[in-house]
Amino acid sequence: MTTETTEARVLEAIRERRDLVNAAVDEELPVQPPERLYEASRYILEAGGKRLRPTVTTLAAEAVAGIDPMTADFREFTGLDGEPVDVLRAAVSIEVIQSFTLIHDDIMDEDDLRRGVPAVHEQYDTSTAILAGDTLYSKAFEILSETGADPADGLEAIRLLASTCTEICEGQSLDVSFESRSDIDPEEYLEMVELKTAVLYGAAAAMSAVLLGADDEVVDALYQYGIDSGRAFQIQDDVLDLTVPSDELGKQRGSDLVEGKETLITLHARQAGVDVNNLVDADTPAEVTEAEVDDAVAALEEAGSITYARETAEELTARSKEHLQVLPEGGSRSLLEDLADYLITRGY
Amino acid sequence: MTTETTEARVLEAIRERRDLVNAAVDEELPVQPPERLYEASRYILEAGGKRLRPTVTTLAAEAVAGIDPMTADFREFTGLDGEPVDVLRAAVSIEVIQSFTLIHDDIMDEDDLRRGVPAVHEQYDTSTAILAGDTLYSKAFEILSETGADPADGLEAIRLLASTCTEICEGQSLDVSFESRSDIDPEEYLEMVELKTAVLYGAAAAMSAVLLGADDEVVDALYQYGIDSGRAFQIQDDVLDLTVPSDELGKQRGSDLVEGKETLITLHARQAGVDVNNLVDADTPAEVTEAEVDDAVAALEEAGSITYARETAEELTARSKEHLQVLPEGGSRSLLEDLADYLITRGY
Repeated sequence: MTTETTEARVLEAIRERRDLVNAAVDEELPVQPPERLYEASRYILEAGGKRLRPTVTTLAAEAVAGIDPMTADFREFTGLDGEPVDVLRAAVSIEVIQSFTLIHDDIMDEDDLRRGVPAVHEQYDTSTAILAGDTLYSKAFEILSETGADPADGLEAIRLLASTCTEICEGQSLDVSFESRSDIDPEEYLEMVELKTAVLYGAAAAMSAVLLGADDEVVDALYQYGIDSGRAFQIQDDVLDLTVPSDELGKQRGSDLVEGKETLITLHARQAGVDVNNLVDADTPAEVTEAEVDDAVAALEEAGSITYARETAEELTARSKEHLQVLPEGGSRSLLEDLADYLITRGY
Repeated sequence: MTTETTEARVLEAIRERRDLVNAAVDEELPVQPPERLYEASRYILEAGGKRLRPTVTTLAAEAVAGIDPMTADFREFTGLDGEPVDVLRAAVSIEVIQSFTLIHDDIMDEDDLRRGVPAVHEQYDTSTAILAGDTLYSKAFEILSETGADPADGLEAIRLLASTCTEICEGQSLDVSFESRSDIDPEEYLEMVELKTAVLYGAAAAMSAVLLGADDEVVDALYQYGIDSGRAFQIQDDVLDLTVPSDELGKQRGSDLVEGKETLITLHARQAGVDVNNLVDADTPAEVTEAEVDDAVAALEEAGSITYARETAEELTARSKEHLQVLPEGGSRSLLEDLADYLITRGY
């Protein structure tokens, strides 16, 4: 668990990197003709977001290089062969892919709100949203292809991003198929989460190591760090959906439950005999009352399901930090460890 | 203009390469879990298609190397540095991108038929179609990243594919925006066609040269060949929509006109004073009669609009062939020239 001081340190690291990443997004993804397309592409990026994945990417670069946090220029970060690599582009490409998946997922899941603003398909229209996502998709590859890394490493980074995107699609496909099934076991669910969410954390963590020319052992360790902390992140997201007030969450608390979305919590509850499908009567997040959500949460707590989710997330986080042992000791590795803790202690 | 003999030669070249490309698609894009996603991703690829772009890619490789058609293994094609390059993967990646754009475009344009079968969003559903397109998108980059080319050339090929995809999105965005405008001039229209259609021909033609390590002059010449013949190809497509019987076309003849889609033909006709918006009364391709289409075509012929389109396509084709002068003379270059002719003389 993080103490108040380490959490403050992590939040500070996220904030200062977020500002760098946002400035880099402006540079790498300018609004140009056709303006409407690029405005729609940037809409969700501009609506907020903590830039957690780019934080992982930049912090991983520092940890691989064995230097202290924020002591180097990410645009000209010294690779292990002494040549400069634009690590910030790698970080931006990951965030751009994340935005593309949010835009397309919101169409598929018919989610109308994102980061407290209308989803792109609501703010614009479905065609524009499909196309905005498609534009971000190729832009991410354009941006990542220009880091200045050794070409063999640059190509390996492209492979990592491409295979990650394929896996995200597979994960989203499983997630959609789960909606029409009532026989999902926790293992299948965790596989879906790994594909849909964790692999992008894996890529975010491993990307810098690939570009800087680190050994496979280091690349693999960072990838596994990302996978385990990404899975923990998603489980925490599911917990937050039930426990954080709607106004802080940017959407109705309990939405997942109302929409019948399966989570590790509901799967545990089912196995514990809870009648999950009838925990709330409302059919849409707009109809549900806070009292209904309170009762549902009480039932899930009673069954030990929320505790189970929290404990699973804690185990994954502990495992994620163990992978980092191959990296040089120091402030950056230590901050990566703290970040993993933060992902499951964060309140929003 | 092609003679019967050269057309037969081109058709033979297309056929033999199509079989190789189809076999390679099976190898590079196998159906794997989640099966439904991969089946949907392959659905349009399996529904047919002439594989014109992969034909351009493989033929360009032979022309760059200065060898006769079909005398080398595309899987181990000798680069200019003597090292083997998998040119077939490059060809497959181009076709896979083409399929992704068809799937997403059909959703946006609400086109329900493609290659004589239901569009993916009709055969499956919109979510699956979005995701199938997204999967093909990343698969194309995965496939292209594994050609075995020199890494610097491999990375340059990735850049070419990524920037091409961005331009295709820009072109589709312009195309969609044209639907709500009545003041498009032919220049704007041709720019849209260049982005939406021609750049993928440009990439298809230049890709092999990039991977084989050819000089920039050769890469640029092949790119321009693809751009000009790709623009001609699209204009011919617009002519065919009006002149080929519906059963050969795989969709209702005159669909573009019924749906109010602007083409070089309608833009010319407008400038010649034709009341294009009232050429047909029907609002959907299902409602229009052959007689109505006949009358509309007669009016467009009367205005010289179809002749104008044909002549423009011929000029572009002549220009496209001039670019090839930098390549070594021989059977492959000559076949590339014939292919450009075929693109505007083909009947379907």
